[in-house]
Amino acid sequence: MDEQTGGAAEASSAIAGTKDKLEELCVNTIRFLAIDGVEKAKSGHPGAPMGMADMAFVLWTDFLRHDPKQPSWQDRDRFVLSAGHASMLLYSLLHLTGYPEMTMEQLQSFRQWGSKTAGHPEYGDAPGIEATTGPLGQGFANGVGMGIASKMLAARFNTDDAFKPVQNWIYVICSDGDLEEGISSEAASLAGHLGLGNLIYLYDDNDVTLDGDKRLSMSEDVKKRFEAAHWHVQKIDGHDRDAVRKAIRKAQKVTDKPSMIMAKTVIGFGSPKFHGTSRAHGEPLGPEEAAATKVALGWPAEPAFYVPDEVRSEFARKVKRLARARKQWDTGMAEWRARNPQLAAEWDACWSHSLPEGFELQLADAGKTDKPIATRELSNQVIQKIGDIAPFVVGGAADLASSTKTNFKNGGSIERLKDDVNDPPPFDLFKGKNLHFGIREHAMGAALNGITLYGPFRVHGSTFLIFSDYMRPAIRLAALMQIPSIFVYTHDSVFLGEDGPTHQSVEQLFSLRLIPNMTLFRPADGVETGMAWAWAIGNKHEGPTIIVLTRQKVDIIPHGADFDPHQIWRGAYVLDGYADGDFTFIATGSEVTLAVRTAELLRDEGIRARVVSAPSLDIFDRQPEDYQNEVLGDRSRIVAIEAGRSSGWYKYVNHDALIIGIDRFGASAPLADIEKHFGFTPEAVAERVRGWR
Amino acid sequence: MDEQTGGAAEASSAIAGTKDKLEELCVNTIRFLAIDGVEKAKSGHPGAPMGMADMAFVLWTDFLRHDPKQPSWQDRDRFVLSAGHASMLLYSLLHLTGYPEMTMEQLQSFRQWGSKTAGHPEYGDAPGIEATTGPLGQGFANGVGMGIASKMLAARFNTDDAFKPVQNWIYVICSDGDLEEGISSEAASLAGHLGLGNLIYLYDDNDVTLDGDKRLSMSEDVKKRFEAAHWHVQKIDGHDRDAVRKAIRKAQKVTDKPSMIMAKTVIGFGSPKFHGTSRAHGEPLGPEEAAATKVALGWPAEPAFYVPDEVRSEFARKVKRLARARKQWDTGMAEWRARNPQLAAEWDACWSHSLPEGFELQLADAGKTDKPIATRELSNQVIQKIGDIAPFVVGGAADLASSTKTNFKNGGSIERLKDDVNDPPPFDLFKGKNLHFGIREHAMGAALNGITLYGPFRVHGSTFLIFSDYMRPAIRLAALMQIPSIFVYTHDSVFLGEDGPTHQSVEQLFSLRLIPNMTLFRPADGVETGMAWAWAIGNKHEGPTIIVLTRQKVDIIPHGADFDPHQIWRGAYVLDGYADGDFTFIATGSEVTLAVRTAELLRDEGIRARVVSAPSLDIFDRQPEDYQNEVLGDRSRIVAIEAGRSSGWYKYVNHDALIIGIDRFGASAPLADIEKHFGFTPEAVAERVRGWR
Repeated sequence: MDEQTGGAAEASSAIAGTKDKLEELCVNTIRFLAIDGVEKAKSGHPGAPMGMADMAFVLWTDFLRHDPKQPSWQDRDRFVLSAGHASMLLYSLLHLTGYPEMTMEQLQSFRQWGSKTAGHPEYGDAPGIEATTGPLGQGFANGVGMGIASKMLAARFNTDDAFKPVQNWIYVICSDGDLEEGISSEAASLAGHLGLGNLIYLYDDNDVTLDGDKRLSMSEDVKKRFEAAHWHVQKIDGHDRDAVRKAIRKAQKVTDKPSMIMAKTVIGFGSPKFHGTSRAHGEPLGPEEAAATKVALGWPAEPAFYVPDEVRSEFARKVKRLARARKQWDTGMAEWRARNPQLAAEWDACWSHSLPEGFELQLADAGKTDKPIATRELSNQVIQKIGDIAPFVVGGAADLASSTKTNFKNGGSIERLKDDVNDPPPFDLFKGKNLHFGIREHAMGAALNGITLYGPFRVHGSTFLIFSDYMRPAIRLAALMQIPSIFVYTHDSVFLGEDGPTHQSVEQLFSLRLIPNMTLFRPADGVETGMAWAWAIGNKHEGPTIIVLTRQKVDIIPHGADFDPHQIWRGAYVLDGYADGDFTFIATGSEVTLAVRTAELLRDEGIRARVVSAPSLDIFDRQPEDYQNEVLGDRSRIVAIEAGRSSGWYKYVNHDALIIGIDRFGASAPLADIEKHFGFTPEAVAERVRGWR
Repeated sequence: MDEQTGGAAEASSAIAGTKDKLEELCVNTIRFLAIDGVEKAKSGHPGAPMGMADMAFVLWTDFLRHDPKQPSWQDRDRFVLSAGHASMLLYSLLHLTGYPEMTMEQLQSFRQWGSKTAGHPEYGDAPGIEATTGPLGQGFANGVGMGIASKMLAARFNTDDAFKPVQNWIYVICSDGDLEEGISSEAASLAGHLGLGNLIYLYDDNDVTLDGDKRLSMSEDVKKRFEAAHWHVQKIDGHDRDAVRKAIRKAQKVTDKPSMIMAKTVIGFGSPKFHGTSRAHGEPLGPEEAAATKVALGWPAEPAFYVPDEVRSEFARKVKRLARARKQWDTGMAEWRARNPQLAAEWDACWSHSLPEGFELQLADAGKTDKPIATRELSNQVIQKIGDIAPFVVGGAADLASSTKTNFKNGGSIERLKDDVNDPPPFDLFKGKNLHFGIREHAMGAALNGITLYGPFRVHGSTFLIFSDYMRPAIRLAALMQIPSIFVYTHDSVFLGEDGPTHQSVEQLFSLRLIPNMTLFRPADGVETGMAWAWAIGNKHEGPTIIVLTRQKVDIIPHGADFDPHQIWRGAYVLDGYADGDFTFIATGSEVTLAVRTAELLRDEGIRARVVSAPSLDIFDRQPEDYQNEVLGDRSRIVAIEAGRSSGWYKYVNHDALIIGIDRFGASAPLADIEKHFGFTPEAVAERVRGWR
């Protein structure tokens, strides 16, 4: 098919060539729901749904193991529309396959305030939307996370019984834009490395991007690229539904490699004027061309949002057949549970993220130490305890586990070394808890989101705080989806020393705190570290947690005998023994050590200071005003200390308060020199306090 | 060579097999300078310099057209050490080839406060450091930017004369980590697409990353991957210096494709115990193993930092020969100038970024309009004017030029369509000014930095503000390097409407303002837009400029007849006609329209308000306190309005001021609904003001 030139003629002839008029009707229903949705909204992306409709129809009605009546069925196949701008495709499919919440009214309220049909699919807005997508490449990497999660679940629960609790596939539709983004290369490389045979990706290969011909900027050999990353690649005509069927079936047979189906399609398929052009990409066809497309595809001009009765019944018939898989799974699972009561209990514990009563105090306790060590080391102690009490928690690092100290010691490593990649991955490869994401922070972030979205696991991923910048879009999406992904960042300030300014965070702390729905902890000691982790693994509806840790040692913070660690969950609290004074130090993380030492130094001079530890300003923001006032005291009599940009503190203090921060980039030097030159010693802080008070 | 097992024996036998003892001595000098530097600093990465020494020696002494006495020679070859952690390699080479500032004392002060030898190479610290590297993948993409800049310069100035002003190569040494980062895939795809035959990359293929065997997380077929992106790929033994020579010579002959030389090396080469292991990667060998390595390679135990006399003279001899190229260029250039006086003047104007007197007022004027339009449209007007007066300004977009409106209308497009990639790129391909980076924001950011670093061009790159998150590490590096890259971001708030929260900035404005050395403009009208651009293209030493623009229309802001646009360069100023009032509105960008409309509405009720437009809070921060106080007035009587996170405003206002911001994620809906529901209408703001005052 020539996708560059010509008009309705080719489109019509393509249609005439199809063998099944009913299918054609179904596919065109999807197309026109998308077209009419975009027309009514007067904005949106009609071209992609028009081009993807054939393959999406085949996938959703012949393959996708889902049950619209039980959208959260644990073993459903996952479908991610990485090309989120084609959202009307997903909404149309959810509607036609009978997801109750995706009503006709919703389709007609596309992109309107309060609808479930946002411009890009928003996780949580309606069942069946498995991930928020739109920022390109994210869904691609979410799928890799889901694939990992499914493999990990299978390794734990797929016993020798004939029935396997985990049988699902991860399907993703992606676009040129997804492939151009670097995150997809990272994720593809990881998926190929791990041999994720449960991934089946359909690439909508339409040669067009927003600015015009794709080949304005992209000419790579996509087949070769994915083969280089150990994917199984097929090339098909994406409008040939039988070819799509065959390709998916073939992909299902390749169980040791992820599958990429390159489906050549025509963007804006059916539009006499705009098909195959970027004009079809990012704006409505317009009434005239929408009408012309209806003529070209033999569709009635009226009514808009038309769904023929026979289409409704065909979808119902097909979905009913697919939903049988769910019923069979229910039956099989009941038998499996009876035969494997212990495993069944573990399965439920995993999916419910079950934690023992008082687990947070156990973790606070696990963080205790009898000598000053770095909070990353304290975190390591806590993680070992989590390994004991919460088997559903898994984690990994972006090739920095030896520095971030996040490995579960007895967790087992999900690793495939040397020439293993030429053999199918062993089934028990995924029994481990420690993942190796490689030097791919962005894909790690999105994969963490995918693992979290999949369901039964709570997962953390770690790197240095500075590299949070490399994965910020994924952090933001976790926050937007309000899912509890856990991001762990060590080496959290200029105090990492010699690696220098490229590796030293300065603006990252307050910058991350600006992301809505997110909880950042920067613990000062082991008890705070334990409670930070407890928040992260126990939190069910609060969005992601970020835990920020030091490379360097911190003191043991004074807590009285009656200290209740739950105070830490108020975000900021007055330290025992430092409740009274002329003014208040407020500090986070390693700077609490500095505040306490300075307070001690000043105490010898008869100057008394209150000291507030603020492990989480995000949580503190959510406290009642009374509590905030009680903790902060007089906002003019505050000395705020944090080794990062100072400006965020003005939210908490008056302009005549003293803020000790770092408003320049760092420097390469040993810790002691950095402390001295940046004025982060008790002596230097005391001197500034004397001048200020 | 078996790089996985064995000890000093193989290393020694490899040495015995070399044909040139003097070369061996030179290479080992590099190795031991790195080892001793890391030992003395008690931190650093010895393994990579030890492994890269052979190829780096060959490159720097047989190929690199540079002159240590004239480090800023315009046509020098550029060398970027993308694997910045191997910094001692670069410092050793700069020292041995005779860069005056890289003294022995500097090598001995590696990673110490105030030295020019930071943990990772810092641009500006010493001549010969062409880019700040360390955050992996950045240098890889900087090189692509440099390659583009060189091609653009050549297309403009390489005449039919025998002498060509632009002859240089871009050499990059990169590592596993660089290749795992997605940015390198983006950059490689772009480089292959553009056929950047002036790139020669050496990949230090050592199979080891920080956490251990590289194949823990990476197993892709690198050769195939780069071939898929249309690179010329060679595989060699990276310790066989003749093979390195041959490969570079061959790469120089491939002028229509970027070249990748995969050089298999042994990390920690020469260390009996740690060679080929991750133990050699990120920490000193330790005194014992450093000594053992000296024994193994036949090196004297003392003194540390030993440079044999014959090595000094050999480097001097080789560098002298290389520097001849510079002298020949000087001669050739003088003749070329004589023959091409007009072009020579353009060459100088380009390199000096020459601008006509009063250019900023011309741009302010170009931004004027007689009806409300979006600031992205106003920016487009200004860009056309820039095209007329500043030929050295070029730009591009991440596949959003049609939305960001940043193309030069008569600039010519650097595009290679359809099947062109199978033919050598035409020479004049790079005559255009409009670049197409593809949907690759991160590589775009780093390429902008590379183009800027190269010298003669001032370059901008654009996408939506939300996608600044995708390129944040590159923005940060521009700020750290204090280079004037220009980042243009449109669709700057929830007011982009229907695309919804995935595309709507909320935290980005104040988050970007947290980056040190950076100047963000959010202009309110055409005059401010013109002055923002004038700052961006005229700025020589102030670091990067970010220009943030609206998708939606803004009003024409009232400026009196005497208005001096230079006021805009104070960051914030009182609007003409709104100098007196009971309180002060301060707003940025589109919210200045809202502030003025609200002030008008309240004026009818007898409530008078001052209105301050604050196009750049970053510049405002640098003003004298008196001016700040004069503009802000009573900090308790301020209403601050910006469609983003509110917390940053507390730096400027007291806690009893009124801040109208957005502290949640956005929503998908038409503009008018968004304005209404978020309370960003004159009526809603007036109501809040009434309640507050």
